[in-house]
Amino acid sequence: MQRSATRGSSQRPITVALDAMGGDNAPANIVRGALSAARDTDVDIILVGRGREIRSHLPAAQRNLRIHEASEAIAMDAPPTAVRRMRDSSIMVGLELLKDGEADAFLSFGNTGAVMAGALFTLGRVPGVGRPALGALFRNGRGTTSLLLDVGANVEARPQHLAQFATMGRAYVERVLRHRNPSVGLLNVGEEEGKGTSLHQETYLLLERQETNFVGNIEGNEMVAGAADVIVSDGFTGNVAVKLTEGLVEQLFGELKRSIQASVIHMAGAWLMRGAFRGLRAHWDYAKVGSAPLFGIDGAVLVGHGRANTEAVASGIRSARSVVEAGVVDAIRDAVAGTAPVNDEDPD
Amino acid sequence: MQRSATRGSSQRPITVALDAMGGDNAPANIVRGALSAARDTDVDIILVGRGREIRSHLPAAQRNLRIHEASEAIAMDAPPTAVRRMRDSSIMVGLELLKDGEADAFLSFGNTGAVMAGALFTLGRVPGVGRPALGALFRNGRGTTSLLLDVGANVEARPQHLAQFATMGRAYVERVLRHRNPSVGLLNVGEEEGKGTSLHQETYLLLERQETNFVGNIEGNEMVAGAADVIVSDGFTGNVAVKLTEGLVEQLFGELKRSIQASVIHMAGAWLMRGAFRGLRAHWDYAKVGSAPLFGIDGAVLVGHGRANTEAVASGIRSARSVVEAGVVDAIRDAVAGTAPVNDEDPD
Repeated sequence: MQRSATRGSSQRPITVALDAMGGDNAPANIVRGALSAARDTDVDIILVGRGREIRSHLPAAQRNLRIHEASEAIAMDAPPTAVRRMRDSSIMVGLELLKDGEADAFLSFGNTGAVMAGALFTLGRVPGVGRPALGALFRNGRGTTSLLLDVGANVEARPQHLAQFATMGRAYVERVLRHRNPSVGLLNVGEEEGKGTSLHQETYLLLERQETNFVGNIEGNEMVAGAADVIVSDGFTGNVAVKLTEGLVEQLFGELKRSIQASVIHMAGAWLMRGAFRGLRAHWDYAKVGSAPLFGIDGAVLVGHGRANTEAVASGIRSARSVVEAGVVDAIRDAVAGTAPVNDEDPD
Repeated sequence: MQRSATRGSSQRPITVALDAMGGDNAPANIVRGALSAARDTDVDIILVGRGREIRSHLPAAQRNLRIHEASEAIAMDAPPTAVRRMRDSSIMVGLELLKDGEADAFLSFGNTGAVMAGALFTLGRVPGVGRPALGALFRNGRGTTSLLLDVGANVEARPQHLAQFATMGRAYVERVLRHRNPSVGLLNVGEEEGKGTSLHQETYLLLERQETNFVGNIEGNEMVAGAADVIVSDGFTGNVAVKLTEGLVEQLFGELKRSIQASVIHMAGAWLMRGAFRGLRAHWDYAKVGSAPLFGIDGAVLVGHGRANTEAVASGIRSARSVVEAGVVDAIRDAVAGTAPVNDEDPD
């Protein structure tokens, strides 16, 4: 399949189909992010959406940036099934571009559930994958990046699905983040074997057998500290963890800001510390994280945070480029082919 | 039952049996915290543990502070079943003091699982309670305190158990935090009805029927923002949420500290901002939170964080006093008696 083949350096630039209509400030911030990435990165970008709206945010023609018309936009809170009746939505049209080989990756900052449903419908799963998973990347206390998955694609899954998340996550971390022999941990309520629900107990046994660098159960605080490169979670807990992190960071910085503004002395101090704050804020700003692939979809489909600002959109495009360049989908295909296929007996 | 009767102001001071051997820095920090609370608060404290070790941290006799000998100490990482063979442990002896009416509350900063197991064995459940739960109090974005439960007493529970957590949590919030008609939310992966696992879907329906001020599902970020006074969670997710919060706060302040120390300018700024930092740190320091009751145990049993410092131990003693004074156990008994009893068909 051309769309996911590992690419050599002699080929044309990598082409990213970008959902121009998805996200809280679309299309303005999406177009601005695309312009930024198009200027700085060797990448061709197809802005998918309503041409008239997109053009109103484009100051001038850009060699490696073009528009592909899609008349509909799926709202952030629409049910995933919206993709069935909105075939001319930016999500479905963008996924078709990927399927037809006109793009190497599809990236959206829009409705994640709709992107997942549309991707399953349009591209399907990598052979042998039981359930696709959603990943979240975060900087850990060791100063490296960890990958948590699943963070919400599946609220209920079987141990075999969770064990496969490890296989897929490892392929990403090896290829894109270039960690050798990445460590794998299971998010749980205690370190000892036998902790957690029966799902977690059984997943532990599968991971122990399957992973050469399995570090065992890790608790919420250890995850943040960087106890593992790949952290496997049920999608329910993973989703709560990611949203909780966002909320905490937002609240903490909000409080800091309020207490700075409440006193001239504090304001003077904050001015002296502005370099420190900038670094901290950048490190913790989830809106700047970029994008993460849908693991197990047979094509490079990536989603970013709905609140992404210009910088995050540009960073998300660079992530999409890396995923294609590193051949992540092929790596997942190879990794999954080397293990027993997992059925999806109980699809959501 | 004398131990949990609502108390009038004319009676003797409230007596708290304190596990002197539990926690990361026991008995030193426990004794120091007890001294601080004994000086400032109208409370009698019984330090339960090895007299010789406790005395080495006691500078002088204190009128409202005494020692009750217990020869054993249950380690922080011992299995809960340790209480069965360690009947002369500070946990079991302290719980017996409560059962016998010599103390009005028992408080430990030690092994939570062992305290729960010992409390179930010694005091049992409030009649009609299916599963006791563990609560965590946190300051939310509205500047008030919310209660999350369960945070780890039950890794697997049924919808009826979770609905009962709401009843018990509400009694605490009404009596101790004095919120009128507190709002109740369900920690879930989306706001819409029907989100989450079957456990969460069924719990939603029960809470909708049972709670007059049910605000529905709340996501991780909304929990932090203060979307509800009482947040019901399965114990697995609640435990991960609490530990993740601790880890994040620790890492964020650690990074801030490092970036301050890396530059003299930043250090000067931080000095001007010290008031703001102190407030923020105090607000977010989980080690200073105090203690929370074991909900559903037929007696005032409270646990605090193992890393509690002197201040947190003193604050935990004051929390224990409030729980007795407010008659929380009676309130829970009354609230549960007004609803259908929940069986515990599948005890852990």
